[in-house]
Amino acid sequence: MAADKLPTRAQDFSAWYNEIVSRAELAEHSPVRGCMVIRPNGYGIWELMQQALDRMFKETGHQNAYFPLFIPQSFITKEASHVEGFAPELAVVTVGGGKELEEPLVVRPTSETIIYSMYAKWVQSYRDLPILLNQWANVVRWEMRTRLFLRTMEFLWQEGHTAHETEKEAEEETLKMLGVYRTFAESYMAMPVLTGVKTDSERFAGALRTYAIEALMQDNKALQAGTSHNLGQNFAKAFELQFQNRSGELEFAWNTSWGVSTRLIGGLIMTHSDDAGLVVPPKLASTQLVIVPIFKTDAEQLTVMETAEHVFQELKAAGIRVKLDDRDSLSPGAKFFDWEMKGVPLRMELGPKDVQNNSVVIVPRILLETEEQPKPGKKQKLFIARPALKERILELLEKLQTQLFQNALARREANSIRNVTDYGEMTQLVERDAGFIYAGWCGSAECEAKVKEETKATIRVIPFPEFQSASKPSHCLVCGNSSKQEVVWAKAY
Amino acid sequence: MAADKLPTRAQDFSAWYNEIVSRAELAEHSPVRGCMVIRPNGYGIWELMQQALDRMFKETGHQNAYFPLFIPQSFITKEASHVEGFAPELAVVTVGGGKELEEPLVVRPTSETIIYSMYAKWVQSYRDLPILLNQWANVVRWEMRTRLFLRTMEFLWQEGHTAHETEKEAEEETLKMLGVYRTFAESYMAMPVLTGVKTDSERFAGALRTYAIEALMQDNKALQAGTSHNLGQNFAKAFELQFQNRSGELEFAWNTSWGVSTRLIGGLIMTHSDDAGLVVPPKLASTQLVIVPIFKTDAEQLTVMETAEHVFQELKAAGIRVKLDDRDSLSPGAKFFDWEMKGVPLRMELGPKDVQNNSVVIVPRILLETEEQPKPGKKQKLFIARPALKERILELLEKLQTQLFQNALARREANSIRNVTDYGEMTQLVERDAGFIYAGWCGSAECEAKVKEETKATIRVIPFPEFQSASKPSHCLVCGNSSKQEVVWAKAY
Repeated sequence: MAADKLPTRAQDFSAWYNEIVSRAELAEHSPVRGCMVIRPNGYGIWELMQQALDRMFKETGHQNAYFPLFIPQSFITKEASHVEGFAPELAVVTVGGGKELEEPLVVRPTSETIIYSMYAKWVQSYRDLPILLNQWANVVRWEMRTRLFLRTMEFLWQEGHTAHETEKEAEEETLKMLGVYRTFAESYMAMPVLTGVKTDSERFAGALRTYAIEALMQDNKALQAGTSHNLGQNFAKAFELQFQNRSGELEFAWNTSWGVSTRLIGGLIMTHSDDAGLVVPPKLASTQLVIVPIFKTDAEQLTVMETAEHVFQELKAAGIRVKLDDRDSLSPGAKFFDWEMKGVPLRMELGPKDVQNNSVVIVPRILLETEEQPKPGKKQKLFIARPALKERILELLEKLQTQLFQNALARREANSIRNVTDYGEMTQLVERDAGFIYAGWCGSAECEAKVKEETKATIRVIPFPEFQSASKPSHCLVCGNSSKQEVVWAKAY
Repeated sequence: MAADKLPTRAQDFSAWYNEIVSRAELAEHSPVRGCMVIRPNGYGIWELMQQALDRMFKETGHQNAYFPLFIPQSFITKEASHVEGFAPELAVVTVGGGKELEEPLVVRPTSETIIYSMYAKWVQSYRDLPILLNQWANVVRWEMRTRLFLRTMEFLWQEGHTAHETEKEAEEETLKMLGVYRTFAESYMAMPVLTGVKTDSERFAGALRTYAIEALMQDNKALQAGTSHNLGQNFAKAFELQFQNRSGELEFAWNTSWGVSTRLIGGLIMTHSDDAGLVVPPKLASTQLVIVPIFKTDAEQLTVMETAEHVFQELKAAGIRVKLDDRDSLSPGAKFFDWEMKGVPLRMELGPKDVQNNSVVIVPRILLETEEQPKPGKKQKLFIARPALKERILELLEKLQTQLFQNALARREANSIRNVTDYGEMTQLVERDAGFIYAGWCGSAECEAKVKEETKATIRVIPFPEFQSASKPSHCLVCGNSSKQEVVWAKAY
């Protein structure tokens, strides 16, 4: 543990991010450029994310399966826009078992091609549909400019792949899974997201339509946090995924795919963490509460540790993920510093006086607005009587989860600028990283490209109605022609 | 569903195995030779295996992490015997992002090298030890002769990697994890295993000592189902994994690694399944009980389906993994056939009479010796009154789990031939696949090699004391010199 302070977010957001990843021991670079090592603290968050998502996938009728890491190179080229999108990013195995391969094997960058080639074997009739599968896997996309979690050559993700009888069913599935992602982002990650559809230029290579959830980070850059694609019949045609429909005719199936990845951990960090370190929402924290015993004499140690052990057992039995920090090599102060850096939601301080008073002191990782406010410049300390402990801790965890979401939502709303109509104003807003910029758009790829080139901002999403501004913009921000739809601009990760 | 019968185990064990994997929809070959697609029925077993093992790993103090898929080729060559063992099996990435790589990247065949190179960065002092990590991952070993689950080019596994202060601690860890594997094999897979140490020729490339669990399949071939390696300081020396010990001196750490893979699913199939199809132990069955409603008239359908739905909810609430088969495209008989093939432990038949009698009929997938025996040539049918349903089902699942283990144990004991002293007799026993052959061994690699060459049998394990024969063999089966230890011979997968 380095005792020196983090760079602040205001000083250098990027350095702050890197230091948090490193000091909270979430991940680090590996000897292979672009690949990361996910350390137990980071992987623990991923495991809790997986559990929640997996349960939601199963509740919506999906099953897990596993498809090969390697894809024949010829498969990738079968869907024209797919190969165009992915060809520059491929890692290719050319030697196996000491011999040059006849056909090189691509390390999967995504699995549409290999999965739909299998579905084509499994589907004969409409009775074999829908197929609703998901896989948890690693994928590889050759990246030169990598950031831990946000952009790495290898990453972990889940990819759902479904096949349906009708276009309508496929569209419903695409939107349903986008909804699952939104619920997950908001309820578990406490990260508010915009939902909407991507423009053609931001669409997944091979998709008919790409929907996304987009979050706003603390530096006011956007993060695409999950995507759900309606693939139409594009892959079905490329891989002859046909079925006999209810009228007895052969028809191509309708596919969807959807995925989220370890990138979410990067989003989690940049949404909630502060200048003291990582902040993890209770639902995704492998340790929700840490008990730090405080004592001086041996006699004090005896009584404090005995009580600490009782409290530990009581909270554990209540299903709280609790840790008792009994390291004797560190002072209580050093432990506070350590657990703040690691983002544990609640810290319990337990000293001889607390034992005597039959109470404990809880210090929440962020200021809870629902609780008694501290004096200026002081930490919030909550005194809890032992008899009420379990209920109170469960309540505080819930409140902290809610508070994190509300803080993030308020920040996003404060940094959403609506009804921008002047291109000059817009470029200034982008330049000072003002946040999500809502404006009218004529729908032309030229206007979109011009902004991207001149400001580096992109259309993050054409927002769903509930996110649209009250007054519909009338003109395109760029060319001044009449607006077809409102869009949200931002620079993005 | 093909309505034709399986080949029997007696006719063609290998064809029987392949047909079960295919018809129970567990897995199939992919377009990439040697790689498999694990279908939901197979992956469901793997998920339950993972959950149980993961819990056991965490209970023994381990955490999960994730290390890169790619390993620099130079790493593999750093540990001399390691490179010798793995070089012929490597898949190598030579092209990335459209360019020839300066240093080729190996797709991990196992992760000792990359993991211990990271540990070397994390460890300075004895205070940083032990490190107790595990990862769930895919690995690739180039294989030409593949069998689904048993031997595939890519497979899924977990690999534990630990670092310790002392040799003693490392040895304790190695044996502890072997014990975890044995408990898992016996309590969850209902598969009895021998435990013991491997001979030098069967040791993991780079290990000091390899311990294994070995099971006997129904064709009397052995299956190595899990291994635990004491790596000594071999990898620590290769990767400069050093720490300052309690006396202030620099010392190399002591490592262990241990793994089980999707191969276990192959072992599960070949331990329990029969000529009617797959048999899955209740603890690893994603569906533990299937309800098949039986009716003719619409009125019957109404009452039967209503009751079926009630029963379904009742059993689900009791934590039983239950399925209601309401497909209307299949007759009850076709459903019975289907679920037998898929190995569901208990089938419930529910018709109008059962509803009237307020009872159900349960047909267990295997004959339960503890229950009323059927007439010769008939299926065992158990009548259960509705009020006692939940308790009775839970009890039957437990009994079925126990019965499977006992059946497998009795079979293994019946096929364990002890005190074999004559080499001619031994070769005959191997030839007719007699099972585990216990005999004396002088300890020489020559005798071991001779048997392997002449009979294809190998020493599966030098068994731990509890598996050794009551009378210690005096002479080596092969050369007749005095025996150093009793060993277990068999042909193996």
